[in-house]
Amino acid sequence: MKILLKGALTLNAEGSSFVRANVAVENGKIALVGDGAGFEADEVISLDNCLLMPAFVNAHTHLPMTLFRGAADDMPLLTWLETRIWPMEDKLSAKDALIAARLACAEMIRSGVSAFNDMYFFTDTFIEAVCESGLRGALCRAITSGDGDFRVDEAIALYDRWHGAENGRIAISFGPHAEYTCSKETLLRTRDEANKRDALLHIHCSESQEEHAQCIERHAKTPVAWFEELGLLSERTLLAHCVQVTDDDIALIAARGANVLHNPQSNLKLGSGIAPVPKMLKAGVNVALGTDGAASNNNLDMFEEMRLAATLHKGFMRDPVAVPADTALKMASANGAKALRMGCKAIAESEAADLVAISLEHPHMNPVNDALKNVVYSAGMGDVAMNMTDGKVLYYKGEYKTLDIEKIKFEANEIAKRVCV
Amino acid sequence: MKILLKGALTLNAEGSSFVRANVAVENGKIALVGDGAGFEADEVISLDNCLLMPAFVNAHTHLPMTLFRGAADDMPLLTWLETRIWPMEDKLSAKDALIAARLACAEMIRSGVSAFNDMYFFTDTFIEAVCESGLRGALCRAITSGDGDFRVDEAIALYDRWHGAENGRIAISFGPHAEYTCSKETLLRTRDEANKRDALLHIHCSESQEEHAQCIERHAKTPVAWFEELGLLSERTLLAHCVQVTDDDIALIAARGANVLHNPQSNLKLGSGIAPVPKMLKAGVNVALGTDGAASNNNLDMFEEMRLAATLHKGFMRDPVAVPADTALKMASANGAKALRMGCKAIAESEAADLVAISLEHPHMNPVNDALKNVVYSAGMGDVAMNMTDGKVLYYKGEYKTLDIEKIKFEANEIAKRVCV
Repeated sequence: MKILLKGALTLNAEGSSFVRANVAVENGKIALVGDGAGFEADEVISLDNCLLMPAFVNAHTHLPMTLFRGAADDMPLLTWLETRIWPMEDKLSAKDALIAARLACAEMIRSGVSAFNDMYFFTDTFIEAVCESGLRGALCRAITSGDGDFRVDEAIALYDRWHGAENGRIAISFGPHAEYTCSKETLLRTRDEANKRDALLHIHCSESQEEHAQCIERHAKTPVAWFEELGLLSERTLLAHCVQVTDDDIALIAARGANVLHNPQSNLKLGSGIAPVPKMLKAGVNVALGTDGAASNNNLDMFEEMRLAATLHKGFMRDPVAVPADTALKMASANGAKALRMGCKAIAESEAADLVAISLEHPHMNPVNDALKNVVYSAGMGDVAMNMTDGKVLYYKGEYKTLDIEKIKFEANEIAKRVCV
Repeated sequence: MKILLKGALTLNAEGSSFVRANVAVENGKIALVGDGAGFEADEVISLDNCLLMPAFVNAHTHLPMTLFRGAADDMPLLTWLETRIWPMEDKLSAKDALIAARLACAEMIRSGVSAFNDMYFFTDTFIEAVCESGLRGALCRAITSGDGDFRVDEAIALYDRWHGAENGRIAISFGPHAEYTCSKETLLRTRDEANKRDALLHIHCSESQEEHAQCIERHAKTPVAWFEELGLLSERTLLAHCVQVTDDDIALIAARGANVLHNPQSNLKLGSGIAPVPKMLKAGVNVALGTDGAASNNNLDMFEEMRLAATLHKGFMRDPVAVPADTALKMASANGAKALRMGCKAIAESEAADLVAISLEHPHMNPVNDALKNVVYSAGMGDVAMNMTDGKVLYYKGEYKTLDIEKIKFEANEIAKRVCV
């Protein structure tokens, strides 16, 4: 299938500005960027009055928690977990998780996400939703020592069954949940199994003050320093949150080439704090953006995370040049693609055809003084005109091409009536 | 004209939850809330699968700055003003301001705003856009002493010509720009003219650290204490920003019943900081929300301000129960209506029929575990299905009823090519 995406203002390869250029797509890859002359397309998709850029990468989320949207808010963390989240999770079946994951995929498709990084349970079942949807995903079964070491065996089985499925759209990572839920032995075994397979290692890290302080009490080390001692830090490591990290932690993360997954909205909403992202960027850390689960956000909208990343640190540091717009745009796309080793890092030949078209139709996107600024500071998920993932159109002008959206919404609301009470 | 709004989940009078209720509208007011039986409507508007609530009030903005969207970002404040904003404003004509204001009105209509509070210049010309649009507006000509005392005379002339126009939809306020741009004499004269007319007094206050510190140098007082000494603080006073206010300032604002206009996104983006809103609310201050101008936001989306108000202070204070969702919703609507003395404070008989319908159609609004939480934490401007202001439908399912949106976008882009270079 050869597709020509025609008529858009397209982000240049450097990610610094939008220029008039057509994009030819073949076999899931970008074949040509330019006028497209000579490209014999099977299909031409008109993107007049649209911007075209690499699709978003949601670098940290928990798909099935979409079911809990709006069911647990404005509570202290422990109350939130003990009185709402855990009781709801107890009632959740694998089938429920599958339907909730379908809803999450639909939401990500509509908001311009092509690839995501998930940690949850029932992964072996709900991964079907990702296959159906056409999205790319890196997924792991959360490993906690309290459950027993068999969680590592489950993770290996998940890897053997699914890694590389769907023409490589599915990757299985190893997901020790966090320092405070995993013993040293579990972390070491997980590390070895991930290393053996050259797999990603996804872990929560220094999300809250309590977690950070308790780790220092237990190990006389910060979580990052503890992970370093155990040999957990490498370019394959994905550290979610890093709100409380020290300057030494940041230097370690940078030295090992580990990736930070910044979830600004979830960190605000749960009262966790504000991660020192400008320092991380200055140290050369690859910082990607995520929404976290819909119970602490409460949506999977990467426009919001991108805008928050570009404004929150300016205000918190009282520095109006912190995290400029083009940096925030890369954090929401290319940096995530680098961290997950999947997706589109730039509009350039042979990059994955994971692309989002953003409409300039509505008043808030006009005038177009600087299209990149409009994307970062003005746009919202309602502006997405097209989502192409792996060279296939998943969404175009309001129509979902892979999912039955009415059925999904109906089923999700029915399940919520039972689970979220 | 008698209109029945039918089939929505409607915010209850307390603003605490959504319940099934129809709303009957007559002569610009809410006539009935209930099943609507016996109400002989000229028109029935179907709002199936929608939420209905008081429209947003954008409590601080600068309409014509919509033209500068994306033209000045990621710069220190003085560079922003000196190299971008002021040169662009120098090139702006009254006609340009009118077209930019039309664009701003279209954006506010589409994003569910019914009333706003503006401070700018060329007001006498661009106010035509507000009249055409059907929106409510409180507007003032910015008064600065550097221009000479004739600005106060202009404000009086503006008041005489426009106050109460359009069936009361237009209010003229008095707008001394700020402490640092107005002499004591100008502030006193403005105060007297506003008092004589029982008019609103709209002023920037303690937006940045520099402004706050320089005022203390000049007057040995904070801006709030200085305004108190000059007798500027009353229930008719609208204090924009208040980022740097002290505990004593907050106590003074509360004691005088003055209103604070909180603009969280603009304060972040310009590097001004984070206003102590939880303290203000605790002290009983009426805090309303605004977007500020599109050059420092960069849109007029009150969903974003509401969500930021509900999450930013949780994260900054590390307190997950700060500014709960229903409080943020009131800040974005009822509190603004109270401050501006216009609009809808609650869905109840004889309140102004300024109403917004929000669609539950898209995945991110499902499941509906708690509709109020979905509005505050999940919704975006793309979810607005209807905007009714003063009992008249201004927007319904993508259609603008009062403005020629294509013409406005074209003209705004043409002007931007000349002004924003």
